[in-house]
Amino acid sequence: MTPKEALNLARKVGEYVKKEVSKIIGSTECGITVGIGKDGTPTKRIDIVAEKTALEILKESDVTVITEESGVVGSGDVIVSLDPIDGTFNAVKSIPIYSVSLCFSSSYYFRDVFCGYVLNLATGDEYYSINGSSYKNDSVIHVSNIDNLKEANVLFYYPAKPYPFKRIRILGSASLEICYVADGTFDAFIDTRFKRGKGFLRPFDVCSALFIAKNAGAKITDHRGNELNNKKLTMDERYTLLVSNPKLHEKLLKVIS
Amino acid sequence: MTPKEALNLARKVGEYVKKEVSKIIGSTECGITVGIGKDGTPTKRIDIVAEKTALEILKESDVTVITEESGVVGSGDVIVSLDPIDGTFNAVKSIPIYSVSLCFSSSYYFRDVFCGYVLNLATGDEYYSINGSSYKNDSVIHVSNIDNLKEANVLFYYPAKPYPFKRIRILGSASLEICYVADGTFDAFIDTRFKRGKGFLRPFDVCSALFIAKNAGAKITDHRGNELNNKKLTMDERYTLLVSNPKLHEKLLKVIS
Repeated sequence: MTPKEALNLARKVGEYVKKEVSKIIGSTECGITVGIGKDGTPTKRIDIVAEKTALEILKESDVTVITEESGVVGSGDVIVSLDPIDGTFNAVKSIPIYSVSLCFSSSYYFRDVFCGYVLNLATGDEYYSINGSSYKNDSVIHVSNIDNLKEANVLFYYPAKPYPFKRIRILGSASLEICYVADGTFDAFIDTRFKRGKGFLRPFDVCSALFIAKNAGAKITDHRGNELNNKKLTMDERYTLLVSNPKLHEKLLKVIS
Repeated sequence: MTPKEALNLARKVGEYVKKEVSKIIGSTECGITVGIGKDGTPTKRIDIVAEKTALEILKESDVTVITEESGVVGSGDVIVSLDPIDGTFNAVKSIPIYSVSLCFSSSYYFRDVFCGYVLNLATGDEYYSINGSSYKNDSVIHVSNIDNLKEANVLFYYPAKPYPFKRIRILGSASLEICYVADGTFDAFIDTRFKRGKGFLRPFDVCSALFIAKNAGAKITDHRGNELNNKKLTMDERYTLLVSNPKLHEKLLKVIS
């Protein structure tokens, strides 16, 4: 599978998920809890609708899908990390910040990702990365250029002391928020949360957007400054993150440690 | 002016502001800084477009408008507190959470407000309150009913220590965020920020949404628990806030103090 073929497949998934999700957004049915996903978190009706739609398209290709609700599906050589809905709380509440994301890798490691795709299901804005460049709606994107913490607009889960940033925001969809760093809308995304001794974020929450941010010039580490080369895309992997433009990264690392 | 007449006037302002703003959203022109408003903060092109549109409609009525960019305009008996764009940063960045809000009062005090109106300019969702009830898109709304902090979804400017809430969000439009408490989407809105010895929020940022939240059953105080009856709608007034369902209010007051 070439990067371009992966992108076309991701776009087809995005198109169908957007269509099916838009049919139930705003209904009470949308937010009904229907079980517990393979990731251990409650599954809403909207998650099921989105995942079912995505898997029906992906199963036509020779891929192994790692996904929030069903776990590992298929046995192809290409690994697809899928988040059918990132920002389920927002989707259920009709807050227009939620997305579908897919990331394609030739192994179970983040370092072998070759295509990342994130679609804002409420607005239709599309972010992707292939062949070393990243795009929003087909225009090349880059991270911001500022180097002063006092000017920084930062997405942060969760601030636990006062920080010298210009703005802090918490929007509720990590994949879209990391894309907002990739295109310079925000200057940094930080997640220092821990749960049962691991980071809080799961691979399908962030790996597509991380690949997009990487190829848009972001510096990406965990919250202690370690590179992510050995991070996996498997169900039990977890991430903490510090994603920012390269000029701010070391300064941010100091103030959050 | 009756509450119903005020609502009709607000709706006309909302309709025209939405129309004019939608013409420039997403353009680089939209975010150009064109001066400093009467409130002392930088004015963007989009703020000017929205305020000019709103004032052209409001000047046909016998009102005094207190507004972010121009200060006090007109000399009518009815006081209109206007925020042409609440969430300018979001609007400039095409993050779909920004609003126009208007609040009508028979005096310069918040306690005499008789109509509050907030329109999400990105989605068209409309919140308002007249005659003791509050509405989203013409359906009556109420605050949530939970009483457990661990289940609480809280909007919070800014957390400065760990809190026991389920979720914390910071979305960047105080008026819409307070409406999200009014309709039970979130359980609380907290703003403890201080600037030059006063709260951070200005009357036009919050008074429309506060009236909507009040009539949807919210308990509303400053961050220390004081009622807002003597708060003014004037240019130099500032607010801190704790807005929540009544069951959570005292518990929240304890954990934020």
